[in-house]
Amino acid sequence: MTDITMPRPLEGLRVIDLTRALAGPYATLLLAGLGAEVIKVEDPKGGDLARENSPYVGRDGVGIERRYDDDVSISHLTRARGKKGVALNLKHPAARGIFADLVRTADIVVENFTAGTADRLGVGYGFAQSVNPRIIYCSLSGFGADAPEGGKAMDIVIQALSGAMYTSGETDHPPVRIGIPMADMLAPVFAVIGILSALEQRHRTGLGQHIDVSMLGALTSFVAIENWAAMRAVDMPARTGLTVQRLSPFGVFECADGYVAVVAVHHKLAAGLFRAMGEPELIDDPRFATRDVRVANSVELEARINAWSRTLPVAEVVAKLEAEGVPVAEVRHPEDALVDPRVVAREETLAVSHPDYPSGDALRTAGIPIRFSAARAGFDPVMPVAIGEHNQDIYRDLLGYDEAKLAALVRDGVVA
Amino acid sequence: MTDITMPRPLEGLRVIDLTRALAGPYATLLLAGLGAEVIKVEDPKGGDLARENSPYVGRDGVGIERRYDDDVSISHLTRARGKKGVALNLKHPAARGIFADLVRTADIVVENFTAGTADRLGVGYGFAQSVNPRIIYCSLSGFGADAPEGGKAMDIVIQALSGAMYTSGETDHPPVRIGIPMADMLAPVFAVIGILSALEQRHRTGLGQHIDVSMLGALTSFVAIENWAAMRAVDMPARTGLTVQRLSPFGVFECADGYVAVVAVHHKLAAGLFRAMGEPELIDDPRFATRDVRVANSVELEARINAWSRTLPVAEVVAKLEAEGVPVAEVRHPEDALVDPRVVAREETLAVSHPDYPSGDALRTAGIPIRFSAARAGFDPVMPVAIGEHNQDIYRDLLGYDEAKLAALVRDGVVA
Repeated sequence: MTDITMPRPLEGLRVIDLTRALAGPYATLLLAGLGAEVIKVEDPKGGDLARENSPYVGRDGVGIERRYDDDVSISHLTRARGKKGVALNLKHPAARGIFADLVRTADIVVENFTAGTADRLGVGYGFAQSVNPRIIYCSLSGFGADAPEGGKAMDIVIQALSGAMYTSGETDHPPVRIGIPMADMLAPVFAVIGILSALEQRHRTGLGQHIDVSMLGALTSFVAIENWAAMRAVDMPARTGLTVQRLSPFGVFECADGYVAVVAVHHKLAAGLFRAMGEPELIDDPRFATRDVRVANSVELEARINAWSRTLPVAEVVAKLEAEGVPVAEVRHPEDALVDPRVVAREETLAVSHPDYPSGDALRTAGIPIRFSAARAGFDPVMPVAIGEHNQDIYRDLLGYDEAKLAALVRDGVVA
Repeated sequence: MTDITMPRPLEGLRVIDLTRALAGPYATLLLAGLGAEVIKVEDPKGGDLARENSPYVGRDGVGIERRYDDDVSISHLTRARGKKGVALNLKHPAARGIFADLVRTADIVVENFTAGTADRLGVGYGFAQSVNPRIIYCSLSGFGADAPEGGKAMDIVIQALSGAMYTSGETDHPPVRIGIPMADMLAPVFAVIGILSALEQRHRTGLGQHIDVSMLGALTSFVAIENWAAMRAVDMPARTGLTVQRLSPFGVFECADGYVAVVAVHHKLAAGLFRAMGEPELIDDPRFATRDVRVANSVELEARINAWSRTLPVAEVVAKLEAEGVPVAEVRHPEDALVDPRVVAREETLAVSHPDYPSGDALRTAGIPIRFSAARAGFDPVMPVAIGEHNQDIYRDLLGYDEAKLAALVRDGVVA
């Protein structure tokens, strides 16, 4: 689909990537997919934590355990796309000078250490700025770069604290853990907005700055778009389960072989739903004839809908409702969602393979969900399968270190 | 907290905002909070659909019904912050020329009409580009600007189709509707990334372009970061409920007065959890002594944790686990989350009031969850309470229309 002769919008920008796990690497993945050159810096011993995430893929396909040295965690495979990788032991005293050399060539640094750690290692914003005042330095953390308790936080902790978890589930049931790592994924998206905004400001001022994004803040700001205090003031519940009674009929209904989402809030849609159910007369029934009475009788209405839909396969319920112009959608398994032809054509999901053992379209992962008319998004066919895979390209070719210097750095355990 | 003498990163950029409802207005809200001047264009008759969303706020506080002419929907109040508003009837033949005049002064246009509608109205990218080749024009839609079936989609439909809904809930139960409008919120965040990336490209080329973001693509790309096909290949379930058994103990547990999220995957954390439970000997119990056996006996382990936590209030469970260094968090109500002192201090949530009837901190809403060291984020104290509130500022002062021209436009129903 993509015209690969097109430029990418962030071409010419270089990113020094100190991140690991999910939140940070997703931020630099987006930058790589938009065309920036990303240099992923990993500890020579062990590298990114995501390298240890099961499952793995390699010469024998997918497995829970790593079976060969060149098996790669699928987490790493998907998050390291389009990035070059160097090894650098940031705890070694010589690392700071190498980091400085990298920063002098770069536009952007991204890190997601626990708050305070980058400064302690001597690679924080203050140092980066001192060697390159144009640098845009982004810190991603659990609670913010200034959090006294440190920034360490896991997605489930942030889901709980942000209120996101509370909003899902039935009124009289426990809250629901959201099955996708919303906090881990949302903070990096805002980090990229911060970085790009700072780039725009740099065009005016010539100077970089520090960007500080918190997982708690990012997800809480999303939760905050609903008017919770006002809803409470007028007795609207914060959690309503599979359906939203004040919009009835609106929500998820059961079919013989799955579930569908249905929206029939307005009169015309409700009438269409009743026709699809084979009960057109309900639109004249005093219990269901107006929006107000449909809301007042939502329990009975939802039961009638379920009694109908439960007898039919999803495909038939969808066909009948579509024929009446009622918005309806199957609740799809993620695997089915990832291969939706619309999503595939727009490259919003992409196939990924181990570089040495192509698996075709078997593994799909996140693309860049943005289409440009005068640019393309997508990943260069480069990836640090091994830690330090691009040491030569970066240390020798980019930074100009000679063989003697490189050999010494390897010998001293700085870069290998 | 914020130093208001700081610049905002996007100062000097102007946005023509044709959006309505949630997804589009959230995109331009982010741009306004980052310092762009946003001119919201509304139909003289009715304006943005969000103006009709209950609840409302005004002289008598919050209410389900609009009681006074100057009551404002809280949805509109929160989404229109920092924007100027003009009235323009895009169906009137004279509107196209006025739109062209606006576009000539602008950097960015954002619209979220059903796919194809902007072109049909004569205000699509092709026309905008013809009057200003530097314009960056962003279209937000359900399935993409090229979708033959049109782009109309609601958040719940996209949640269902994307796989996001399927991933939440218990294995043998129905899927769960996520209580925050993830699809509506996520597409605009990627739209802003696309717009800012195109701005960066414009610094190189001098030219704008069309950005096309789909709600389905944005949310599906998020879902796609998990390795669903690989998980199925190794028999990992796609949905595991309140806990994740392969990381046991990991998940949400019940307390006497609420729920907590607990992460005790690693050995040291599991030992800390057992001490907190008053059963330190469990770490030597053959059923729970290693990560592998804890996973194998996750059902029994989770039952023991719940049996303990259920007897205690949330505060006590949190205190006991924190004392042992085990990551733990209360599952908070959104209202409590929005007033977390960390989030308030960082302005990741902000108070909002009706301009004429201040309500202090009673209503909090989304802030910009990004902190800049050399800039600030935040909203100018401006808002189109009435449709066309800033007609004079824009049509007379910015575009230079004289009183006679304005009077004719009003008389003909073009701008009022």
